[in-house]
Amino acid sequence: MTIEYDGTDFHGWQSQPGLSTVQGELSRALEEITGRGAEIVGAGRTDAGVHAAGQVASVRLETNLSPTELRRAMTAKLPGDIVVRKIEEVQLSFNARFDARSRTYSYVFIQRPTALWRRYYYLITGDVDISAMRGAIRGFLGEHDFTSFCGSADAGSSKKCRVTKAGIVQSPPLVLLSFTADHFLYRMVRSAAGTILEIGRGKPMKISEIIAARSRAAAGPTLPPHALFLMEVRY
Amino acid sequence: MTIEYDGTDFHGWQSQPGLSTVQGELSRALEEITGRGAEIVGAGRTDAGVHAAGQVASVRLETNLSPTELRRAMTAKLPGDIVVRKIEEVQLSFNARFDARSRTYSYVFIQRPTALWRRYYYLITGDVDISAMRGAIRGFLGEHDFTSFCGSADAGSSKKCRVTKAGIVQSPPLVLLSFTADHFLYRMVRSAAGTILEIGRGKPMKISEIIAARSRAAAGPTLPPHALFLMEVRY
Repeated sequence: MTIEYDGTDFHGWQSQPGLSTVQGELSRALEEITGRGAEIVGAGRTDAGVHAAGQVASVRLETNLSPTELRRAMTAKLPGDIVVRKIEEVQLSFNARFDARSRTYSYVFIQRPTALWRRYYYLITGDVDISAMRGAIRGFLGEHDFTSFCGSADAGSSKKCRVTKAGIVQSPPLVLLSFTADHFLYRMVRSAAGTILEIGRGKPMKISEIIAARSRAAAGPTLPPHALFLMEVRY
Repeated sequence: MTIEYDGTDFHGWQSQPGLSTVQGELSRALEEITGRGAEIVGAGRTDAGVHAAGQVASVRLETNLSPTELRRAMTAKLPGDIVVRKIEEVQLSFNARFDARSRTYSYVFIQRPTALWRRYYYLITGDVDISAMRGAIRGFLGEHDFTSFCGSADAGSSKKCRVTKAGIVQSPPLVLLSFTADHFLYRMVRSAAGTILEIGRGKPMKISEIIAARSRAAAGPTLPPHALFLMEVRY
């Protein structure tokens, strides 16, 4: 399933008892349609408030419905802020999380105060040096230990990620930061965006040195979730 | 003052006791800044849920603050879904409502289900004939009695408006209907949009005949407010 959602009113992707989550809503809709519970595996476990234009999830089902019929039935059962864009049949072994080759996330700044669209953009006031930010974002490219950009203290797991694309598109008043990697650490894009923004504001920091420090304290702040979009997952 | 707002969480423009309205929020902010109440006159009295990218309002104030200082002070006092874009000093006789030469409203359709942005667009499913809609919207041009597109039963007042521009811009998946007129009747754009949509879906109606009927029953339905934007007011 390829899924679009507005994260504003959800407590993130992952099911949590008593809270409205995207995974929870999808599970409920599927159970209402098929009469049975099924485990839904998402490619990206987005935080509360984070949006998705192209989340991908897999589920094992026995049903007589065609993918198109199933998509229609789900649309009817889901709230308007979750839309299943596409359903495809895949091999039984397919796992949307573990088989993903890359994820792309974008973080969107807006450079003038706006009343409209503000649930999707992060307002930056004052001047920023976009070319300094372009230089900074390139520092994320490659395979690195991104401990400095990881919001969780989970010491056991590897903090290595391979970032294959990192760039900035400026379309006034918007400035869009995009990252593609094999996977991302907890709050990695939001702290990367916060660090790049500080560099844009003139703070003399180098991404390579921040990465080498392997300390969350070396990087900039974690920006809020509402301007972050899971754009695409590739297999 | 040129004002942008997201109408979603307001009970429209006009002050109402006990309800949050755009005019009410502006009045409150100004009173907190200047210490005195003042009557704010808006060019368009938008309904609950309607947005504005370029509402204009006038107010008489005695203040030592410059327009820029006043704008900053208001920004600090206003909720995030109202943004004062610009404040200009004008002649004391200026009245944002009565001196307006034209208003431009846009109604925005979206042609595929979307989870994002849905508070700004009206979803249309199935095929529509855009060229038939283009033909229909041109029927609004000129000076007419628009009783058929007026949502209020106020029999006393004139229902004449002069529509100077009416057109459709298609930018998939969006279809944007825009109207410029000296003034608009109550819910006129929303019933115009509903009628044009019915024509796009193949209903054999002619705008000239609907206008001539001078009956609300002759036109199509009034579409919901959330896809309507007050774009610009000219003087």
